[in-house]
Amino acid sequence: MDSQELIKSLSRSTPSKIVLLVIDGLGGLPAPETGKTELETAKTPNLDKLAAAGICGLSNPVGPGINPGSAPGHLALFGYDPLRYVIGRGVLEAVGIDFPLEPADVAARGNFCTVDEAGIVTDRRAGRISNEKCAELCRLLDGKVIDGVEILVRPVREHRFVVVFRGKALSHEVSDSDPQQVGIAPLEVTASSPEAGKLAAVVNRFVAGAKSALSEHAPANMVLLRGFSEKTDFPSMSEIYQLKPAAIAGYPMYRGLAGLIGMDILETGRGIVNKLKTLTQHYGEYDFFFVHVKATDTAGEDGDFDRKVAVIEEVDSGLTELVSLQPDVIVVTGDHSTPALLKGHSWHPVPLLISSRWCRADGVKEFSESVCVQGGLGTIPATQIMPLAMANALKLNKFGA
Amino acid sequence: MDSQELIKSLSRSTPSKIVLLVIDGLGGLPAPETGKTELETAKTPNLDKLAAAGICGLSNPVGPGINPGSAPGHLALFGYDPLRYVIGRGVLEAVGIDFPLEPADVAARGNFCTVDEAGIVTDRRAGRISNEKCAELCRLLDGKVIDGVEILVRPVREHRFVVVFRGKALSHEVSDSDPQQVGIAPLEVTASSPEAGKLAAVVNRFVAGAKSALSEHAPANMVLLRGFSEKTDFPSMSEIYQLKPAAIAGYPMYRGLAGLIGMDILETGRGIVNKLKTLTQHYGEYDFFFVHVKATDTAGEDGDFDRKVAVIEEVDSGLTELVSLQPDVIVVTGDHSTPALLKGHSWHPVPLLISSRWCRADGVKEFSESVCVQGGLGTIPATQIMPLAMANALKLNKFGA
Repeated sequence: MDSQELIKSLSRSTPSKIVLLVIDGLGGLPAPETGKTELETAKTPNLDKLAAAGICGLSNPVGPGINPGSAPGHLALFGYDPLRYVIGRGVLEAVGIDFPLEPADVAARGNFCTVDEAGIVTDRRAGRISNEKCAELCRLLDGKVIDGVEILVRPVREHRFVVVFRGKALSHEVSDSDPQQVGIAPLEVTASSPEAGKLAAVVNRFVAGAKSALSEHAPANMVLLRGFSEKTDFPSMSEIYQLKPAAIAGYPMYRGLAGLIGMDILETGRGIVNKLKTLTQHYGEYDFFFVHVKATDTAGEDGDFDRKVAVIEEVDSGLTELVSLQPDVIVVTGDHSTPALLKGHSWHPVPLLISSRWCRADGVKEFSESVCVQGGLGTIPATQIMPLAMANALKLNKFGA
Repeated sequence: MDSQELIKSLSRSTPSKIVLLVIDGLGGLPAPETGKTELETAKTPNLDKLAAAGICGLSNPVGPGINPGSAPGHLALFGYDPLRYVIGRGVLEAVGIDFPLEPADVAARGNFCTVDEAGIVTDRRAGRISNEKCAELCRLLDGKVIDGVEILVRPVREHRFVVVFRGKALSHEVSDSDPQQVGIAPLEVTASSPEAGKLAAVVNRFVAGAKSALSEHAPANMVLLRGFSEKTDFPSMSEIYQLKPAAIAGYPMYRGLAGLIGMDILETGRGIVNKLKTLTQHYGEYDFFFVHVKATDTAGEDGDFDRKVAVIEEVDSGLTELVSLQPDVIVVTGDHSTPALLKGHSWHPVPLLISSRWCRADGVKEFSESVCVQGGLGTIPATQIMPLAMANALKLNKFGA
């Protein structure tokens, strides 16, 4: 019996409520001038109060040294082993825009990009065109049928879109056309298995057609495709935990991921205040809420230390509304670290706090990397967070006699 | 996907450099008079400086409570699960003297020993005879052919030698003749599988012949054999990590082990000063260096607390040369503990420090057992050290989207 099966066998439905607040890319690295991380620099009286009443630690989303993408980072937080449950990027984008994927569909993540006269990629994001322009270009490419395969193209945001290939006997095992760098031409898509030959040919013809159709639309004069994938069935959170879960997230990918594991996706606005307003509105309807804050990660990826500090402070001041709802369990953590100094995701363990009446509080009085490392939870795999949250909500039966 | 496969799938080659300094048997136990271990007694300003700039912890080479041999201890440090990758002692000795083992060869570790008139072992090491005497006696035993099996005997050091059985359809599954204690006679070698019957018979005839041939050579008047084994193929460090690795070690076994996983073995002299001179000379040619210090372990095994302290201080003063090379990542640890009080290897977790620009330093200011136990890394399996070193060298791609 693996640990997920164990939790599934013990979970019970009760009225108690769990709120999991994910501050994306929360963990950081100290600025050389101050020796303090983003979280340590931010004034966070409410988080510190929660930490003091709770039990703290650090979590490794995938494993020590492993730098997690957003999907494995979140899956781990929801208690799904990220090495076992793998979601293709294309599927993630498609469910993120509520696209009704059919079981045999193959989805890919698309970028509009810029190529020069020689066909060399000069900007992988086409200068981040507007959402409107993206939608217009998607309409231009949508609805083609190549060799009996229907091709559906839908805008996501800025330069990003989803393309879905719908046809008989398609295998997703084809390579990316996106070279993931500028200075070279988009790659020919090749089949990694004999069954995927048909899709590879269709994709290459689609890309060639897109190039012609977009030739007058510079900077968005070409497409890059990656993450060809099919939808796979994951056990839902309600199956595993007997929970009625809801997601409060703005960014498509996180909504999509939450949908894949059976959360209801609530409509919400930008920023923590709107997210917590949504939480309050729907508080009676669910017993598990995933609340997602994206702007910390974006600031970290942009290398903007101060903006990440400011977002953390904004989250902190919003917390009074969350606390006033008096959930039985509040978990605050991130899906990975995104230190502004590294301008990207990193492997560093992520600050974690679990606050509940039954948490057995440790001596930690401050929510920060350097204090959480001394916390009562120690440094744990992120997949252990849900079992701990469930336990603190008194939602797990005893194991054995 | 196991963690080694995961690391393999994420590793990338970059110019950054990692130096792994292994102070053999580093961990200790406190002297009752002072309450301080060998490492805590030694004055180690350079190690303390590295610890202050780095992140510290303790490592368990094989598992909590498990007392590791040198081979599993080192394999774990190189990221190879020591329960999965097992190297026979005979093979280890053979590769340690650069003996060109063929795939079907069976190698055993040999000791010249002393037996009395009744054939009882009185000294398992024959008074540690000289290297010259060992070589002379090996020539005496070398080159016999028994039942079509060629028997090759090569000196290692002092009382130690290697014997290789080369023939058709030999299985290594035979028991040791070495009783591992004095006061009893050498054991009859027996086959543990039907296929090994032939080798067992050949070995017993070889031992009987050696006893006659050595009868006039007391104290080296008998042989003890153990660790019959064949060479198995391990994935190399360059396959797993995309590294170009080099080993700087004097002692044959460590050179042999490093060779088995594909490290280049550099010629070097005795002592830390010569080792680091070799490091400096070859610094441009590799991106991973394993530097091995043996004398700490030897002092610990001899129960010589003060000598172990002195060796640690010698290593510490040599460190300025290592630091001046400015490797991107420096790891300092041991392959196991060898407390002088126990006169042997022990299960105690081993002090560990990882120093890099990106390590997220903890508050540890002193490299010692009692301070490292509070360190930011916590107490981790030694197999996690390489993933962390690779991450700190920015040599691991992100996992998942």
